[in-house]
Amino acid sequence: MAIRALVWGENIHERKNKAVAQIYPRGMHQAIADALNAGPGIHAETATLEQPDHGITPERLAQTDVLLWWGHAAHGEVSDAVTQMVCDAVWSGMGAIFLHSAHFSKPFKRLMGAPCNLTWREAGERERVWLTTRSHPIAAGLPDHFELENEEMYGEPFGVPEPLETVFVSWFQGGEVFRSGLTWRRGAGNVFYFRPGHETYPTYHDATVQTVLRNAVTWAHNPAPRLADPSDAPNVPVTRALEPISERGPRLHPDGETGYH
Amino acid sequence: MAIRALVWGENIHERKNKAVAQIYPRGMHQAIADALNAGPGIHAETATLEQPDHGITPERLAQTDVLLWWGHAAHGEVSDAVTQMVCDAVWSGMGAIFLHSAHFSKPFKRLMGAPCNLTWREAGERERVWLTTRSHPIAAGLPDHFELENEEMYGEPFGVPEPLETVFVSWFQGGEVFRSGLTWRRGAGNVFYFRPGHETYPTYHDATVQTVLRNAVTWAHNPAPRLADPSDAPNVPVTRALEPISERGPRLHPDGETGYH
Amino acid sequence: MAIRALVWGENIHERKNKAVAQIYPRGMHQAIADALNAGPGIHAETATLEQPDHGITPERLAQTDVLLWWGHAAHGEVSDAVTQMVCDAVWSGMGAIFLHSAHFSKPFKRLMGAPCNLTWREAGERERVWLTTRSHPIAAGLPDHFELENEEMYGEPFGVPEPLETVFVSWFQGGEVFRSGLTWRRGAGNVFYFRPGHETYPTYHDATVQTVLRNAVTWAHNPAPRLADPSDAPNVPVTRALEPISERGPRLHPDGETGYH
Amino acid sequence: MAIRALVWGENIHERKNKAVAQIYPRGMHQAIADALNAGPGIHAETATLEQPDHGITPERLAQTDVLLWWGHAAHGEVSDAVTQMVCDAVWSGMGAIFLHSAHFSKPFKRLMGAPCNLTWREAGERERVWLTTRSHPIAAGLPDHFELENEEMYGEPFGVPEPLETVFVSWFQGGEVFRSGLTWRRGAGNVFYFRPGHETYPTYHDATVQTVLRNAVTWAHNPAPRLADPSDAPNVPVTRALEPISERGPRLHPDGETGYH
Repeated sequence: MAIRALVWGENIHERKNKAVAQIYPRGMHQAIADALNAGPGIHAETATLEQPDHGITPERLAQTDVLLWWGHAAHGEVSDAVTQMVCDAVWSGMGAIFLHSAHFSKPFKRLMGAPCNLTWREAGERERVWLTTRSHPIAAGLPDHFELENEEMYGEPFGVPEPLETVFVSWFQGGEVFRSGLTWRRGAGNVFYFRPGHETYPTYHDATVQTVLRNAVTWAHNPAPRLADPSDAPNVPVTRALEPISERGPRLHPDGETGYH
Repeated sequence: MAIRALVWGENIHERKNKAVAQIYPRGMHQAIADALNAGPGIHAETATLEQPDHGITPERLAQTDVLLWWGHAAHGEVSDAVTQMVCDAVWSGMGAIFLHSAHFSKPFKRLMGAPCNLTWREAGERERVWLTTRSHPIAAGLPDHFELENEEMYGEPFGVPEPLETVFVSWFQGGEVFRSGLTWRRGAGNVFYFRPGHETYPTYHDATVQTVLRNAVTWAHNPAPRLADPSDAPNVPVTRALEPISERGPRLHPDGETGYH
Repeated sequence: MAIRALVWGENIHERKNKAVAQIYPRGMHQAIADALNAGPGIHAETATLEQPDHGITPERLAQTDVLLWWGHAAHGEVSDAVTQMVCDAVWSGMGAIFLHSAHFSKPFKRLMGAPCNLTWREAGERERVWLTTRSHPIAAGLPDHFELENEEMYGEPFGVPEPLETVFVSWFQGGEVFRSGLTWRRGAGNVFYFRPGHETYPTYHDATVQTVLRNAVTWAHNPAPRLADPSDAPNVPVTRALEPISERGPRLHPDGETGYH
Repeated sequence: MAIRALVWGENIHERKNKAVAQIYPRGMHQAIADALNAGPGIHAETATLEQPDHGITPERLAQTDVLLWWGHAAHGEVSDAVTQMVCDAVWSGMGAIFLHSAHFSKPFKRLMGAPCNLTWREAGERERVWLTTRSHPIAAGLPDHFELENEEMYGEPFGVPEPLETVFVSWFQGGEVFRSGLTWRRGAGNVFYFRPGHETYPTYHDATVQTVLRNAVTWAHNPAPRLADPSDAPNVPVTRALEPISERGPRLHPDGETGYH
């Protein structure tokens, strides 16, 4: 069965900025979804900010194996409710891939617990993406490095928690470096951040970038059944203890209480 | 100069529950602060939930090297503003130590980006805390294991991100295990979670536990100057690029713009 | 195509000790291989210490996707040449699973770069293995905990490097704990350590243990093409630099030199 | 009490190559030791390859808090006995800092358990070292980046295990990147790799590099008492089990046996 991907896009620059609209006439989200659908094994749909609930409901997330997120101008317009929904879905096992300026999106910042800041420059300079671990599944089929002739610069320090793995590090023409491919796990969900993708350049039309996106979706997919309540903290009463014990000492919680959350 | 610790306590059970009040007549926060002040090199004060702004202001956090947090019954009463203040302070370099039921506190959950859930049982059973890494600074002066004759059980799976280091793992009489000492870094701040400390048992009067707390404060202290704005994402204009580059291609941001956050 | 597993066994206790021979009449390696072959998608063969070159050649390892290793009495008899072959194969992308007393095997110690020591007791006591991360692929289909009524005890501190992920932690009846499922990556190879499996108990006949082994083989398999020379350190001459540079300053290496290794 | 550092140098290029001898007339090891001794709190001595036992004995390592290692041309001449001595000392709590071409030294490769390979070019090009984590103790007092006008290039992929923390990433003029400051822990010992320091350039005379070296020595120092036998794997007999258990089932080891290693 195909992996079900959902590409979330802000869909603002594409409608308001001519340069962006020319590159992505049907929106960045659609270009990304098309790239995912071009390969076997992935079925990608889209959702956008201006839709009701930003196109995101618990039911839709329950049917999503991997969510991809691109946002930039309107991070603040994403509701807290949708942000929490996304976090809950990740914790229950949905994969999540955050693209480029989504480093400052609400769901990414919430999942990282860190400032997620960086330095930046919009000058269309050359970016060269290097593999730091040659045979990582996200790097399948890639050469040791690939170039994007025009990209926005993002520079270190990148304010994220130490990753599980560093997969890519970028070189920039203007003199900076950036850890541009990083993995984490949050609850049962695999999380990947991938740096390239400024809206004024045709990055998501690049064949190597598209390979990375497809690899990342495959990697992020956790085939385990989704956890029903990923924040559940069940009480295990004495009578059901695995080793025989007797209750001792003072108690705060009467029997059957569910605890404080 | 002494490390400046601030012990934050909910101070509810101590006033409402006789068993707790007998063990901690001046509050758990005060018992912890006393333990920290008993050793050299740490100066500890306290703050509690019922104080204005829960006793926490940006100014006070700026003067705090390490914050310790104990909460249980009233996680939901901690304001979002104070939660964000604590996260900002950690990101700027303040150490943070979360104790026992603070696994479900707002600041801890926000810093972890994960559900932070577990299983639990209040039966006064025996806990044996094992070192998993013998010479870690948080374990300085400790034997390979120590016992707490009466403790609440917390069981795996513990829903936190993979730590930088696992320092302690606990054995419980009723048959469970728990990773009871874990470290992370968030921004410039060192974070430590330490499991023991249920309010109905005299855990914070235990000499070994007090050693762990003092060690943890010393470990969590980052002597680097506090970052002024830990979420700052500065633009680096082309004219100040470290290598000579010329601007190319379309642009979204006019000169001097600060970017989207 | 099936994942090609190779189960390496010392095959000493099975021939010299009656208790072991009764439990594993065809050897522990064969019992493990049978368990792997019982499920779909894995084809397992065996190799043993007493065979020429311990049954291991570079050619055979090149045809092996995942190597499983069980040793105990004769770690010292494994040749340095075979040890290096195994390390090279792992670095080039072969998965490796080390079982129980293989914590002290030459290949595991070489891949870890650490003492790999622990405490132990052979008393047939109860071990309860807990999941620390509920939806990890190695834990697919498992309950939150499972029991082995008779096992050797291994206790912390376990002298291994911090893992990428802690998958299992064990509780022992006699009062110890142990991180019994840990993952690492070495070069292109995925490495898993799994604790249970003392030779005098029927652990590898346990259905849940067999599920873990099959899961672990699937997880450890890296489908990327095997790296031809995983230790290669190529010179990139100035004339092939990706950005135009001129040679400057004094030099140690004449043109075409391969560098020191 | 001052931290006791020992700077180990190969001392070959300095004697055989005029360019190197001019930059480091008393040897690279002495230049590094001088830089360490220039600051407060560190007392540094030196040892070199041509000395008996390469200047390294168990007694001397027992008196060493942090070992720094620079080698290039003669990795193969370092004896296996000294390599094992260094690993044992690290496991028992000695800090270790590996410099530049020491990525291919025997002790580093043994501690990493990985190929430790990279790409390289000797062209005197510009290296710019970026901090990836702003307030790490190894980066104390440093700006967000610093430059070395002439350095050898090292490029990714760098074949080391995922570090605990990535502290520095380098940009190279010719188009490569490299994770140039990485931390690990092996046993009780802190390990740091620092990339800069090609022998034909005056890198170790650079004030910022000297600051990094002093910071790294302070960071790597583990004040815990050195472990007497870091590979010890003690038996815990049934009679000394922490919880009362009875021996059950078949046994392999008679009483008092020390186990297989």
